This record gives sequence, C-alpha cells and structure tokens, in this order.
Amino acid sequence: MNLRTPGPIPVPDDILEEMAGPMINHRGPEFAEILHRTTDRLKQVFETANDTYILTSSGSGAMEAAIANTLSPGDKVLSASVGVFGDRFADIAEIYGAEVTRLEFPWGEAIDPDTVRMALDEEPDVKAVLVTHNETSTAVANDLGAVAAVVKGEFDKLLLVDGISSACSLPLSTDAWGCDVVAAASQKGWMLPPGLAFITFSESAWRAYGDSKMPKFYFDLAQYKRYLEIGQPPYTPAVSLMFALDLALGRLLEEGMGAVFERHASIGRLTRSGVKRLGLDLFASEKFASDTVTAVRVPDGVDSGKLIALAQSEHGVVLAGGQQRLSGQIIRIGHMGYCTAEEIEEALHAIESALPRATLESAAAC
Amino acid sequence: MNLRTPGPIPVPDDILEEMAGPMINHRGPEFAEILHRTTDRLKQVFETANDTYILTSSGSGAMEAAIANTLSPGDKVLSASVGVFGDRFADIAEIYGAEVTRLEFPWGEAIDPDTVRMALDEEPDVKAVLVTHNETSTAVANDLGAVAAVVKGEFDKLLLVDGISSACSLPLSTDAWGCDVVAAASQKGWMLPPGLAFITFSESAWRAYGDSKMPKFYFDLAQYKRYLEIGQPPYTPAVSLMFALDLALGRLLEEGMGAVFERHASIGRLTRSGVKRLGLDLFASEKFASDTVTAVRVPDGVDSGKLIALAQSEHGVVLAGGQQRLSGQIIRIGHMGYCTAEEIEEALHAIESALPRATLESAAAC
Repeated sequence: MNLRTPGPIPVPDDILEEMAGPMINHRGPEFAEILHRTTDRLKQVFETANDTYILTSSGSGAMEAAIANTLSPGDKVLSASVGVFGDRFADIAEIYGAEVTRLEFPWGEAIDPDTVRMALDEEPDVKAVLVTHNETSTAVANDLGAVAAVVKGEFDKLLLVDGISSACSLPLSTDAWGCDVVAAASQKGWMLPPGLAFITFSESAWRAYGDSKMPKFYFDLAQYKRYLEIGQPPYTPAVSLMFALDLALGRLLEEGMGAVFERHASIGRLTRSGVKRLGLDLFASEKFASDTVTAVRVPDGVDSGKLIALAQSEHGVVLAGGQQRLSGQIIRIGHMGYCTAEEIEEALHAIESALPRATLESAAAC
Repeated sequence: MNLRTPGPIPVPDDILEEMAGPMINHRGPEFAEILHRTTDRLKQVFETANDTYILTSSGSGAMEAAIANTLSPGDKVLSASVGVFGDRFADIAEIYGAEVTRLEFPWGEAIDPDTVRMALDEEPDVKAVLVTHNETSTAVANDLGAVAAVVKGEFDKLLLVDGISSACSLPLSTDAWGCDVVAAASQKGWMLPPGLAFITFSESAWRAYGDSKMPKFYFDLAQYKRYLEIGQPPYTPAVSLMFALDLALGRLLEEGMGAVFERHASIGRLTRSGVKRLGLDLFASEKFASDTVTAVRVPDGVDSGKLIALAQSEHGVVLAGGQQRLSGQIIRIGHMGYCTAEEIEEALHAIESALPRATLESAAAC
C-alpha cells in the first residue's frame, strides 16, 4: 500500500523494528538516558531552548495541554482559524471556559496578519492567540513568522501554536518567532507511528501557568517538569514508541533539518505541479500551499468517496477525503516524512486512472 | 534482563514484533475491523456489556477520564484509598473541583467495606465512590466484590474503579459487581507495552455524563462513543499498539480468562512463599496479598536502593522500590502477564544474594 494520508504516514522498516525491543523500566537509568537524549534532540528540531515534553497521546492531547496549562476560565482568547484543526483549537479553549473570539478565514486561504492586528487592537485584553501553523484539513501553511510578528512583536500576547503537521517538516523557529507553546505529534514528518505528542513551553507560558486555573492532571506540565529533573516521565510512557523516537530523531538530525525542510518543499512542488498537469484544481491558494499535504478539488459530478475507494482497491494508494464541510469536495495527498517522487507519481496516476470510472459510477448513482 | 517491575512487564517476542507492521489509515476499513474486534474482546475480559473504549494514554489518563466524564465541580465524592494510586484517584477528583472525603486505610491493609458503609451512611449526598481494585504501591488486592456490594448494592452510588493493575490478571466482574467505570492500562497483565488505556462506562455513568460539567476534550467519552459507531477513534490512535493489542487479546481469550487468573494466583502464591522462605517479611496483609505484585519489607539497616541496584547489576533482575512514604522501606516484585516460576526463583535468588553486600554497603554508608 502507498499510504498517502496526512498522518499516519509510512514509517521506515528499521524504525518500525526498533519498537520490537524488549521492555525496560521507565523509572530506571536506561530510560532516563533515552528521555534526556530525545528531549534535547526535540529542542533542536523545534529550534528552542524552551522546556519540551513528550506526552503519550495524540496531537489533540498536546493542544489540550497548551490550553489547560496557560489559561483560566473567563480568559479572553483570540483564535485565528483556517480550517478544521483551527476550529478544534478554539473548541478546546471554549470547553475549558475561555472566552474565545473566533477569527475565521476562508478555507483554502491563510491567516491574514493584518486582520489579526485589527482584532488585537479591538480587544486589548486578549490573553492568548491560538494559531495553526499548517492546517491539514485545507492543505494551507500559514506564514507563522508573520503572524507571530504581530502577536508577539506588536502585542506581546501569549502565542499558542498547533504545529502538529508542520513541526519537523516545515521551518518552525520556535524561539526566533516567539512561539510560547508549540504542540506536535509523532505520526507526521517525524516518521513515527502515532502515539506520542510533543510540546514546547516558554518562560512566559510558565508565568501563565502560575495564574492558570483550568483543571489538568494527565496533561499537567508541571508534573512533567518535576519528573524530567529525575529523568522520568510522570506517568508510564509508551516505551516502544520512545525507542522509535530515539532512532528517528538521530536520523533526522544527521540528515540536517535544512535538508529535511528542502525535501518537503521539493515533494510539495512536485505534487502540486503533478495535480495541475492532470488538469485538476488545487484547493488551497497556491501562495500558501502546504508542503506536507496537498488538497485537490474533486471535479463536479464525481463522488470523492468512489474516487478514494477505487484508488485504494485498484491501485493500492490510500488517499484522504475532505473533513466536515469539505467532505466530498476534496481529496488530500499526504507527503510528510520520507516520500519519494515515485510514490507521488503513483498516487497521481491512481487518481488519473480512477477518475473516469469514478465519474461514471457517480453519474450512475445519481 | 528479568524485568520484574509491576509494569512495564516483559512482552512476548511475537507481540513486540506485531508492532512492526506497516502503518494503516486509522480512518479506513482495516482499522475499523481491528477497533471493533479489540473492543468486543476487551468487553469479554472486563465481563461487561457496557461501552468500552480504548484511549491512547497511560492508565492515569483513564482515571482522569473516569472522573471528568461523570462528575461536576462541587460534587461530593468518597475516596477509599489504601496507597499511592488510591490517593492519586482522589487527587484527580479534587483537581477537577470535586469535594472529596478521603477514607484512608493503613498501607498494607485493604479497604474495609464496613467503614465504607459507615461513611456513606454519614454522607448521604455522596455521588460517586472511588476505589482501587489492586493497589500497586502496597501490593494489596481489595475485595472489590465486597466493596461494590456496599457501594452499589446498598447505596446505589456511582462506582468508579481503578482496575489498572488488576484487569486481565485478577477476577473482575464489571457487570456482576456493578462497576460503573473501570480504568485499565496495557502494560499490565495484557502482556503489552505501555501506551494504551481502557475504560468501561455503564448506563448509569452515561446518565452522570449528561449532568457532568467538568471540562474534557481528549478524554471526552461522548466523542469516543460517536466515532466508534463509524469504526473510528476520535483522535489518531497508537496504531502499532493496536496491532499488538489485537494479537494479545486473541491469545488471552484462547487461553481462557479462568486459566489466566489461575496463572496469576499460582505465581502470586509461589512468590509469597519464596519471600518467606528467605526469612523476609511481606509488606501486605497476607489475606489481601495481590497476585500481580508482591511487596517485601527491606530488613532494618538495608538501603533498598543499594539492594535494587545490586539485583540489577549483578543478577540482571529489575525490581521496583517503594513509592512516597514507602520509599526505602519495601522492594516490589511484579508478576503480571506471563511470568514463569523460574523468573520468580531468579528474582528471589537475586534478592538473597544481594542482601549481604547491600547490608554491608548500607552500614558503611552510615
């Protein structure tokens, strides 16, 4: 199978095999060494000197941690959303009792920093701004540096970033841009199975933690901080995934993050030009097209579900559909982690070949 | 290494290797099949017809889910604790704003159902009772059936159970006893690496959910319920661990849960008689001694840290120490999952052999 969902992604065999290592005591010296080494290497990838923690959860758990560790019920929060995951970030803040102002940009477009500036001008008592770096649902990469320049540089607000499908694939300068919290997850460019989440936490975030009254236990980062000092996680970690993380991080840093980013940029360009070559339309504004996932508009009259099913059954290519209001309107091709030009060509060929039959079958079903 | 911590536990090679399977789309039919099959099999192990969900987290996450999905800030809760994990359950409820009455029994002893009855008589407006089935920190197995007979049978309170180190190792009749919520975790008798948690949720628990005002997102069981109907988890699951779970559950049910429980009872007896044969004292009251972990009192004048370090460095046996106020006072021998008599004899031999040097070195350090 050519798994082209935007997470999980294909994981290299030796990283998968690393998970088969025998269990070890997570409160012993061997695990402490792995925990310290992986934490240090994560900081290199995030380009941060901030505290960085590894959670046993999906990326959504890290998004919840970002909210619950910095805010209190009633706090004013500005959400800048361009899709499903931006909305999710705002939802979490609301569930925990924050007062959320939702800036919503058209799906397929990016966050406009000027609009963020106007919103912050209008609401000076906003405490935190929620931003998705790379919106997986629309295949848009926001210009996080430009957004951060407004949020931190001009207004000095707490900047909470969903970097789940960007970190380790797209340049993300946590400290240089002033991101107070960045959430990420293992099943993206890290070349790992799902199950681990990562979170960076700045000094300002720790000051906010001191005032925060949202309840937290499993995601309480003060516990992670306290335990990391003795080389342990507070709760039993996914030991096998930690073995894999250790191997994958070593490999990524050996390759060099510049090369990793270039690899993603190159495969992103290749995918987009291939889609256009097929005469299909990209969903996202090309100026902000993501280099980790590409969204393709499904031609009128074609049932995207049939197209996806045929691509898998006839060509062994696993594509993703659209989420929520994009359901049926787009298909998505993931290209995070190691992804070869051949795999993309195969995916494009599958789409091209499946389209006529999907079109016929869609018409017949009407 | 002979890993004798009470979780993680040694995992059979073929279950470890199962994790090396290639990634699949967690929103596709192949994953749906695994999710439905493992969920059905989990219900068999828990002896329940209640809804059962798989979380990507440690067992502590499932404990938090038990609280946050059933209670509201200000709700009165009775906690019956016999150790570290019982206290943790109460702590979580307090963090989330519940009003907790803490019944604390001497460490090494079990919960006394009569005391629970008196407490419930005194506080008729208690909404839920928190009970640890098997207290890993003291190696005590509570008589959950007897406690449940009081909590459910006599008072019909919501019964929230930490079954993390009992489920799948000790008899736990979720429905027959009336446990509304049971939390468990993969790195115990399930013979799996850590990273997954399991939770059962009764009709009464769902009614409590309807009134619950504690915030929840990642652990919001209504999302798990909604998504399970379409064969998916709400958030990206630990796919590799799900492969392993699928294999392990098949094996356990093939063996038969009666045989699995007898295996644990037998190895528990063997361990306790071996400890006494060495002239050492068991920490837990023998009437309530756990069959998943044994706690051994460290003789006066012996530094338990030295004993544990020597057992590992000289004999390749990894033991656990005491937690919190038991630190330095006990060592713990885990025997969950597949654990042979030889492995226990080896552990006992390591303790016996390391004791004289540990005693000497402890004296020298004074």
